[in-house]
Amino acid sequence: MPNPTAAMLVIGDEILSGRTRDANMHHLAGQLTESGIDLREVRVVSDDPDAIVAAVKALSDAYDTVFTSGGIGPTHDDITADCIAAAFDDPIDIRADARALLQAHYDKQGTDLNAARLRMARIPDSATLIDNPVSVAPGFSIQNVHVMAGVPAVFQAMVASVLPTLTGGDPLISKTLRIERGEGDIAGPLGELANAYPALSMGSYPYQKDGKYGANIVMRGTDMAMLSEAMEKLAAAFPE
Amino acid sequence: MPNPTAAMLVIGDEILSGRTRDANMHHLAGQLTESGIDLREVRVVSDDPDAIVAAVKALSDAYDTVFTSGGIGPTHDDITADCIAAAFDDPIDIRADARALLQAHYDKQGTDLNAARLRMARIPDSATLIDNPVSVAPGFSIQNVHVMAGVPAVFQAMVASVLPTLTGGDPLISKTLRIERGEGDIAGPLGELANAYPALSMGSYPYQKDGKYGANIVMRGTDMAMLSEAMEKLAAAFPE
Repeated sequence: MPNPTAAMLVIGDEILSGRTRDANMHHLAGQLTESGIDLREVRVVSDDPDAIVAAVKALSDAYDTVFTSGGIGPTHDDITADCIAAAFDDPIDIRADARALLQAHYDKQGTDLNAARLRMARIPDSATLIDNPVSVAPGFSIQNVHVMAGVPAVFQAMVASVLPTLTGGDPLISKTLRIERGEGDIAGPLGELANAYPALSMGSYPYQKDGKYGANIVMRGTDMAMLSEAMEKLAAAFPE
Repeated sequence: MPNPTAAMLVIGDEILSGRTRDANMHHLAGQLTESGIDLREVRVVSDDPDAIVAAVKALSDAYDTVFTSGGIGPTHDDITADCIAAAFDDPIDIRADARALLQAHYDKQGTDLNAARLRMARIPDSATLIDNPVSVAPGFSIQNVHVMAGVPAVFQAMVASVLPTLTGGDPLISKTLRIERGEGDIAGPLGELANAYPALSMGSYPYQKDGKYGANIVMRGTDMAMLSEAMEKLAAAFPE
């Protein structure tokens, strides 16, 4: 059975303007690979309702699971929850369970649960909450979409609590061989191996550093014995 | 007149598997912002022909300019050029001008221009070449799509040669104010400012570090005087 598929939607002008370097994509990609879930596509869109709604619908239809990051705080540019509700045609308002979480947290801090902070309790009716052990304001899951914060520490905590609820596949394992030759010399033998082992995915990632060049050849698959066999054949074709 | 729009398509299993952290998105985003071109969307797809073709078509239709990175080397997984040709229904084969570039380069190195390296001369008929001062194998532009290498040094060189050929808009300038308060306290005054200055885009990017929290408030626009005025009002609302 093929592994389940996933997509990620990163929401935020700050990535697209170059102000911030996204960190969540790399984290999620690594976690999904370990879980045997194939991350097939990532989209980054701006804080624009039409763009968010269209992307959520497209990814939710095309993949088994969708993860979003960003846009669920208390400020005017945090519009993700309302866009997700619109995408699924689900009513949305301040929800009692989310409000109670925030109330308890801010009461303990002696901080006012003002109108802005209450925005973080806006959750679609049919969603279930995702725990936020870092800063309390919850994420949520609705249908096959998991809506999470953009702050990396919170995003990572939410991924950790969502992943065990998903059905994974066989973990993808990989082996890498660094070959100090031009890709043009590696390509022939590598292409033959790729044909001979269709169950493995083989990639060539060239590097150039300090005037030296070469390529890291990565083979991925779920069968360790097969991976080792193919990698040994590649190494034999390029003795040091 | 609104600024021209752009999208980026990152092609490569290595990003989606978490093996490699993409660096090109952040570079391109910063360059486009300086040029007054709005980067509206980024998609990352795997080395899958159907996914690449569909994404190129969708982005080319929706935005003024599209940049792709990755998948134009000599190995079997480098399928970008053929996918772009398919997306635009343009014939593709080894082209004389690209072949001549490679031949001269490898002759000088005393390296054989073998079948694998010749793959890098596969260029769609109607495309124009993009110079590669780093490793010679060219990128290409076809209609509104610029096809570039994934190796960061090469990608950056190609961006530098393509950008001057594009019509930019007013450069987007930004100002940032760091406020050591919870976002929930900042949200009210910030929302009022966002309403009062619809020509500015205002974002709130919370941080939590060493037990301290606050937010960086970023205002973006093309009118420096307006930016300064709005930023002074925000600073006045949150005296240190």
